[in-house]
Amino acid sequence: MDAKSYLSGYADGEGCFCVSINRSRRHAFGWEIRPSFSVSQNRDRAEVLEIFRHQLGCGSIRPDRSDKTLKYEVRSVSDLVERVIPHFEDTPLLSGKSRDFERFAVICRMMYRKLHLTEIGFNQIVDLAFEMNPSGIRKYPKEKIKI
Amino acid sequence: MDAKSYLSGYADGEGCFCVSINRSRRHAFGWEIRPSFSVSQNRDRAEVLEIFRHQLGCGSIRPDRSDKTLKYEVRSVSDLVERVIPHFEDTPLLSGKSRDFERFAVICRMMYRKLHLTEIGFNQIVDLAFEMNPSGIRKYPKEKIKI
Repeated sequence: MDAKSYLSGYADGEGCFCVSINRSRRHAFGWEIRPSFSVSQNRDRAEVLEIFRHQLGCGSIRPDRSDKTLKYEVRSVSDLVERVIPHFEDTPLLSGKSRDFERFAVICRMMYRKLHLTEIGFNQIVDLAFEMNPSGIRKYPKEKIKI
Repeated sequence: MDAKSYLSGYADGEGCFCVSINRSRRHAFGWEIRPSFSVSQNRDRAEVLEIFRHQLGCGSIRPDRSDKTLKYEVRSVSDLVERVIPHFEDTPLLSGKSRDFERFAVICRMMYRKLHLTEIGFNQIVDLAFEMNPSGIRKYPKEKIKI
């Protein structure tokens, strides 16, 4: 058993690489860009979330909105860049979710270098985010966010 | 990357070890007991199902009832006993789903030895099946099935 490969397989099914974009007065250009890696699981099968936290050495586990599930989540950009992304580059996803992951990695590394505070970087990140999880629902259209 | 560990991780999230029990005039005691291992996935991310079929060397991939997903499924009791169960014994599930898997393995091996055709074996299998996937919905109550 190779724990790293196991976690990549689990994440390929149940994990989410997401970049949400929400209105915020406190952030540059009036929008908060928030990347996160998360995995949800029913409470009675939450052991795997502990293995993620242990293996990746970051993130937190807490109840999801509904009371039935627990969610492992990493939001810190430095943890994403220094721990989560290297894991999935060493032990890659094998499904089409890898396409989302590649864009996610570019966005996180841009934010790590503070490029989201520049107009060009901000617009590039928004474009990349809209290429991710194409079946998902976006709260705001791209045209409304870009500068 | 270790493909076997990856698949166990994936199956721990997305896989199903199920034993369905349905009315049938053609089967002993009037009930068909059908064990299956299955994994479903959206069409745009179905590569993983091919990896399952290749790695386990059995099973088939076909559209699920809804048109959006594909399903990898193994129903043959001999394939389950000779290929699927050994894989998950070599490279175990790490979540509580392993409890379902253990019962599943006992049921499949009993059926492989034709014990479901005996009254005692049939009743034991029904008891074990009802201990699996406790959150799932059963079509018939146990009392109605047991002899």
